Amino acid sequence: MTNTTPSLFDRLKAAATDDWAAYTGHAFVRQLGLGTLPEAAFRHYLGQDYLFLIHFARAYALAAYKTTDLAEMRRAVASVDGILNTEMALHIDYCRGWGLDEAALAALPEAKATMAYTRFVLECGLAGDSLDLYVALSPCVVGYGEIGAALAAEQAADPAAISVTVGKGNPYASWIEMYAGPDYQQVAQAAVAQLDHLAALRLTPARFDALCQTFRRAAQLEADFWHMGLTLAP
Amino acid sequence: MTNTTPSLFDRLKAAATDDWAAYTGHAFVRQLGLGTLPEAAFRHYLGQDYLFLIHFARAYALAAYKTTDLAEMRRAVASVDGILNTEMALHIDYCRGWGLDEAALAALPEAKATMAYTRFVLECGLAGDSLDLYVALSPCVVGYGEIGAALAAEQAADPAAISVTVGKGNPYASWIEMYAGPDYQQVAQAAVAQLDHLAALRLTPARFDALCQTFRRAAQLEADFWHMGLTLAP
Amino acid sequence: MTNTTPSLFDRLKAAATDDWAAYTGHAFVRQLGLGTLPEAAFRHYLGQDYLFLIHFARAYALAAYKTTDLAEMRRAVASVDGILNTEMALHIDYCRGWGLDEAALAALPEAKATMAYTRFVLECGLAGDSLDLYVALSPCVVGYGEIGAALAAEQAADPAAISVTVGKGNPYASWIEMYAGPDYQQVAQAAVAQLDHLAALRLTPARFDALCQTFRRAAQLEADFWHMGLTLAP
Amino acid sequence: MTNTTPSLFDRLKAAATDDWAAYTGHAFVRQLGLGTLPEAAFRHYLGQDYLFLIHFARAYALAAYKTTDLAEMRRAVASVDGILNTEMALHIDYCRGWGLDEAALAALPEAKATMAYTRFVLECGLAGDSLDLYVALSPCVVGYGEIGAALAAEQAADPAAISVTVGKGNPYASWIEMYAGPDYQQVAQAAVAQLDHLAALRLTPARFDALCQTFRRAAQLEADFWHMGLTLAP
Repeated sequence: MTNTTPSLFDRLKAAATDDWAAYTGHAFVRQLGLGTLPEAAFRHYLGQDYLFLIHFARAYALAAYKTTDLAEMRRAVASVDGILNTEMALHIDYCRGWGLDEAALAALPEAKATMAYTRFVLECGLAGDSLDLYVALSPCVVGYGEIGAALAAEQAADPAAISVTVGKGNPYASWIEMYAGPDYQQVAQAAVAQLDHLAALRLTPARFDALCQTFRRAAQLEADFWHMGLTLAP
Repeated sequence: MTNTTPSLFDRLKAAATDDWAAYTGHAFVRQLGLGTLPEAAFRHYLGQDYLFLIHFARAYALAAYKTTDLAEMRRAVASVDGILNTEMALHIDYCRGWGLDEAALAALPEAKATMAYTRFVLECGLAGDSLDLYVALSPCVVGYGEIGAALAAEQAADPAAISVTVGKGNPYASWIEMYAGPDYQQVAQAAVAQLDHLAALRLTPARFDALCQTFRRAAQLEADFWHMGLTLAP
Repeated sequence: MTNTTPSLFDRLKAAATDDWAAYTGHAFVRQLGLGTLPEAAFRHYLGQDYLFLIHFARAYALAAYKTTDLAEMRRAVASVDGILNTEMALHIDYCRGWGLDEAALAALPEAKATMAYTRFVLECGLAGDSLDLYVALSPCVVGYGEIGAALAAEQAADPAAISVTVGKGNPYASWIEMYAGPDYQQVAQAAVAQLDHLAALRLTPARFDALCQTFRRAAQLEADFWHMGLTLAP
Repeated sequence: MTNTTPSLFDRLKAAATDDWAAYTGHAFVRQLGLGTLPEAAFRHYLGQDYLFLIHFARAYALAAYKTTDLAEMRRAVASVDGILNTEMALHIDYCRGWGLDEAALAALPEAKATMAYTRFVLECGLAGDSLDLYVALSPCVVGYGEIGAALAAEQAADPAAISVTVGKGNPYASWIEMYAGPDYQQVAQAAVAQLDHLAALRLTPARFDALCQTFRRAAQLEADFWHMGLTLAP
């Protein structure tokens, strides 16, 4: 009923509907939701996601450097700390369940898609300002929340349709639950709010197109990341 | 008669009138205009200005890195090239006339005031965006044009008042002429235009205060640079 | 008789022979040498190479920022200037001959392979030091010289074998001549010397593996760039 | 008995004995040890030290960005987190005891000496590599440990000589105890170890002089920071 201004995130998504749909509705995601994703694809994805997290932590460290606002610095550092000391440990535990131990993870060569996405994000932040950096990060942070919530909702709406092919519970159910769960949903909402905080400070109409392009490319690079998982690409 | 919007530079200057006056009307500048500045002070300033130019060139190189706009990149690189391959040679020639040869210049230890100003500018550009960087650069580029023009105008208005203490022409006349001359005045005007170009893209009302603070500090650090010259501070 | 130390470039190449061979002997290169490369592939490559040059210029601008050594700064700025004001103009002329005018070039979307390579190089330079940056740049600068020289030598050794499929002179002859020519060969040699200059200052045995990995990845990303041309990949 | 190699920190200190002595034996430090330091000087120092901590946290965030080594990243982030979420809170508590509440701290203008030192450190880290950055940080981190330990030892050796002028306990005793205490001493030792870790990877004989100059300047800028406190300089 209230006539709220759309968030910057919503405006960016609306300007990149095709790329956003291609990312969040990628075959990897569809198969993950149905439980039909080949385990090798998921395992390849998991390993690269571990390497991805390292650079993701670096991106938030860069964001912490780029501000002198204490509250913003603390939020960025909490993200780095969360990634390095909580998310990574969870990831390692989770990977162990899929037969990948920490030494195996650390020894993995970085896939092309991992490199392409992470260096793009970092360089956006170095050439530009915090707004450029957080826009480049947002398809990942917010998108995973959206994907998790959508898959969980589908599963709730029609549990019978899912995993019949595998004849048991969806092996990726815990992954879906994690991103659909309240903790991660809050992380995603905080990222949307952080973008609006920065937009209030630094967004001009003249910047919108360039930010859209950054957003669109980041969404494409996320889709490439799923593709890398699905095709086991090095 | 035309109702023009003031330039960003004029708005920044208007918001920092005291610091701007303290910089452009510093005792070093007054004495330079009257020809009464001790030669040792001028020589100390000249040497440090040479070291300053090196970091100034680095700041424009950073600006060139920070954009993908070809015209902006070319302007920034023309500045680096101009500093390294023209201005520096002129500076070396000029210094030679004051008893400082290139080897002496290269061996000079960097004064505190030189370090303080240059690192402030560079770090502004790395933590922020191109607008932050060019605002930090502007008191130097545009200020020298204003100082040169003002001193030349005073000299033209009342030549008798000048240099009577030294009983000959103002020994700093060629310095004043250089910055008052059409070539440098064009450089200063181009810097004002470049700021407006970036402001059209990236200036928000919410950023104005922070940019003022950057401008004000840069003007203060310029005043400290004059002070360093006057006091022969290391 | 002389007992010369191999250059850092030669050591890196020797540690990455497979990746180097895959890059310099890529099907794109082979077909270019034989004159059998589809024109659409060459045109796609040319357009992306134009976009690549913009980021390449940014990388040298970053190198200029990262030093306070005047000679090194001048070399880096000469590279930026050469790219922006000479190489790019030649490129635009050359592209015009292939039906791509400047407006068409500027409107091209950046291909994935272009983004991946360029952001990798830039981020290496920001996270690391000048040595990391120049190592990441070297497969391009020196590799093109090697490719040009090798193709020219093959053509000289057996002109009859070349271009018979197209029944006329190799349409890519001028591209080969440019990179085989003395001007570009000197650029490539200067890049080898610049690496050795930096190695003398900053290379430790402990860094060699990481630099190899940077070199290897850059060579792989160059091979991906050829692949992008050959497959017309977006 | 063991013939250990001196740490890089010890080598740097040995190469800058005069600057190190001027910093660690500054009148501010002497008076602080004797309890004769004017309270206004200490209060001015405390406020600026709060602002200093913000940029110090940014420097460690930058260090976290600049590595992909997880252990090193975690150490750097622990430093940022420690500064922002522990040290700053202690600082605020401590300042409250001296009549400076958090709002007063946040409203303080940054003194010249604070700006000069912090931007120098940050820019070292951006232009150079992690070794350059940590060398620039070391006079602060390790020096405070040395100063704290020395003042505590003097106090223990001759308690009667201290604070007689003020006729009561040294008002700065808790400051001394904090830096002399085991927690901070461990922080200082970890910083020495971190420098040696980086030196093993990246130190060449050719870099030593430049690192000495960085160290020497950072020590001088620390001495200027004391001077700022003592003279209440803005």
